[in-house]
Amino acid sequence: MSDFINVGILGLGNVGAGVVRLLSEKRTIIEKRVGKPVRITKGVVSNLTQKRGLDLSEIQMSTNPEHILNDPDIDIVLELIGGLSLAETIILTALKKGKSVVTANKALLAEKGSIIFPAAHDAPGFFGFETSVGTAIPIIRTLREGFAGDEILKISGIVNGTSNYILTCMAQEGMEFEDALEKAQEKGLAETDPTLDIQGIDAAHKLIIMMNIAFNGVFDFSELYIEGISDITALDIRYTSQLGYTIKHVAKAQTTKAGIEAHVHPVLVPRDHILSSVNNAFNSILVLGEFMGSSNLYGLGAGPGPSAVAVMGDIVEACRYIQTGQQRPISPFSIPLEAWTPRQLVPMETIRSEYYLRFHVRDRLGVLAFISRILAKYRISVRSVIQTGEPTKKENPVDIVLITHEAVEADIQTALEEIKGQSFIAGRTQLIRIEAE
Amino acid sequence: MSDFINVGILGLGNVGAGVVRLLSEKRTIIEKRVGKPVRITKGVVSNLTQKRGLDLSEIQMSTNPEHILNDPDIDIVLELIGGLSLAETIILTALKKGKSVVTANKALLAEKGSIIFPAAHDAPGFFGFETSVGTAIPIIRTLREGFAGDEILKISGIVNGTSNYILTCMAQEGMEFEDALEKAQEKGLAETDPTLDIQGIDAAHKLIIMMNIAFNGVFDFSELYIEGISDITALDIRYTSQLGYTIKHVAKAQTTKAGIEAHVHPVLVPRDHILSSVNNAFNSILVLGEFMGSSNLYGLGAGPGPSAVAVMGDIVEACRYIQTGQQRPISPFSIPLEAWTPRQLVPMETIRSEYYLRFHVRDRLGVLAFISRILAKYRISVRSVIQTGEPTKKENPVDIVLITHEAVEADIQTALEEIKGQSFIAGRTQLIRIEAE
Repeated sequence: MSDFINVGILGLGNVGAGVVRLLSEKRTIIEKRVGKPVRITKGVVSNLTQKRGLDLSEIQMSTNPEHILNDPDIDIVLELIGGLSLAETIILTALKKGKSVVTANKALLAEKGSIIFPAAHDAPGFFGFETSVGTAIPIIRTLREGFAGDEILKISGIVNGTSNYILTCMAQEGMEFEDALEKAQEKGLAETDPTLDIQGIDAAHKLIIMMNIAFNGVFDFSELYIEGISDITALDIRYTSQLGYTIKHVAKAQTTKAGIEAHVHPVLVPRDHILSSVNNAFNSILVLGEFMGSSNLYGLGAGPGPSAVAVMGDIVEACRYIQTGQQRPISPFSIPLEAWTPRQLVPMETIRSEYYLRFHVRDRLGVLAFISRILAKYRISVRSVIQTGEPTKKENPVDIVLITHEAVEADIQTALEEIKGQSFIAGRTQLIRIEAE
Repeated sequence: MSDFINVGILGLGNVGAGVVRLLSEKRTIIEKRVGKPVRITKGVVSNLTQKRGLDLSEIQMSTNPEHILNDPDIDIVLELIGGLSLAETIILTALKKGKSVVTANKALLAEKGSIIFPAAHDAPGFFGFETSVGTAIPIIRTLREGFAGDEILKISGIVNGTSNYILTCMAQEGMEFEDALEKAQEKGLAETDPTLDIQGIDAAHKLIIMMNIAFNGVFDFSELYIEGISDITALDIRYTSQLGYTIKHVAKAQTTKAGIEAHVHPVLVPRDHILSSVNNAFNSILVLGEFMGSSNLYGLGAGPGPSAVAVMGDIVEACRYIQTGQQRPISPFSIPLEAWTPRQLVPMETIRSEYYLRFHVRDRLGVLAFISRILAKYRISVRSVIQTGEPTKKENPVDIVLITHEAVEADIQTALEEIKGQSFIAGRTQLIRIEAE
């Protein structure tokens, strides 16, 4: 046995660079917790000449993944390149070779979990993916181990730091979406191509990973209902604030009589709700258990520091198994492979919710009455109304804001479709669901 | 190998009864997560005839711990009797016999950790104590595993549900301490003898256990500075609320230039502080890491449901090791035994803080000037003053409330000692420390 535990790192972006720095600064503490020194001996990047502001003098660099995968001295493979197909090959090869694997790749785990997880389940090495959800919030371990003694009824959380940062800027500074996105990009909190974050896909990836563990089944990513924050306007922030709500982007899954429902979209949360005060790049995940009641985990959801800590937590755990010659007795998704069977979601159309609706209409007599009549036709009753705008000029566009009582998604969609074609409609109708408690 | 994993339970109070109920109701889920059915086959209680409202028909009951300890078919011993000496014998015997042990006994771990932890470290069985701190909040696993990749700089939390419930009643309903305590007792949230909770000892037990893991050393319980909430009055709640603060009972440990400081006492937290809105029997633990920043874990800190879930989480983990024939590779206190060496605390007298001081004085001319002069003599500068009471009747007792700038504990104590002897003092002087951020 070597005197060191040897790590090979693939990818030296923000997270990878954070890991190199963390291990170099906290070498002594990590060694104390593992019982043996840990070092990164090899690295793989696509561009060897790029300046990274890192001391890589003790790391043998290459552009070829086999540089790490074919090295029998590498104990732990760190997959931080992201993306789907190359990352998949790297992880499967490393597991097959008996190496421990640590990854932060939520897209891969969400979209190809039915390939990766079974391979990890059967492999002798440790498979760590704590970083994939909630960054430094230890939600994977918590769902799989800490809360393993209870039936989980609901998970609901703010799990995308970028969206939350943008919504915070919009709420606190009155910014429009595009300006807040630009600010997030300037601060390094949004990527040049922000699609995955602002369209809700990243949050949905994280939700599916949590669901697979919490509800002990295989859920299909393509069944998830996903909406991002790019259609939220400063106007909506103002109206909902007047009504006592904060707009947050929430990923939620819960057991209901009809089965498990899961969706990712903006929601209105009451101002005294625990998620309402989660601001900037923070993440917060609420878990409801039948016996334990409500629990909440809160922490920084992005940034090289928290990401590096989450990755290093998995490295430390892998090292502890390597160091003692033991294998992890816990399946990565909490249950034995044979019990991990496909589960279907309740169709989105049947889900009940309260709704915030904003109609942008030409100010004619009887518009509100017309809208109310259509809503009533589809069993949607209105709880409160705000009508705004300047009624001085005839036919000036105004906003009609409605809050409904609980209604069925399919009914709302049909009603909106019917209203959409009316000549008084002067712009896009906004729909945001309301979080009940 | 048996077709079942067999558990023996010692103690059937609130927590024990909760575990029996949880396992009976969630048998299928637990079996799915473990890969084998789990059952409680034997129980030990001091009084066999006591009515418990539980179905114990499948559990062989006895009053003798050897009934469980000497049974080779028992895989997991559940110590839920509390107290020190008998619990110690039970745990050490069970570990020596190679059984896995799960306990909720924070007093034992805090006061005899230097005996129990090394024994657990060397034993082949799993040793679980997640319930001992934060109940269903998985703080032990989080400090030992999730955050194992970072240097922990600070832990600070509300970890005693009883004290927090009492302070919440005092703050929200204006109750005096004694009435709030009585209400907590009626609700089953305080014991008939509430000493451990209201004197801060229970919170201190929990702090020491967290410190042993987070700071990777052996800390001596007797070195901790401990104050409870029994001297807090409705008057203090009112004054501090006027000043924008909430009074909370906080257990805190942090690394400073001088070393590690740790103390348990009531503090004033600003109203927008994350701990300020933690109410009733909820617990909340803030962890600050050098790389990860702030993280917070929140959940119910008391009650049979959350306690049973925490115990069951440990049982599930023990079962997973038993079921796979693996041993836990992680030391119960995070590091190998030889590295787990005694650490000393910074003396309380040298700690710096801001202070809330309330003097109950006869309303004479020059009293405030006199107090200010004594404070100044000991380098204590005053940030704000409230003087109250009815100055109509001469020498009527009034309250003088002061908020100081940061000062040294020893200076404050000396100054208060000097003021105490003055003839204008009409009652006990109140001192509450202020949480800086």
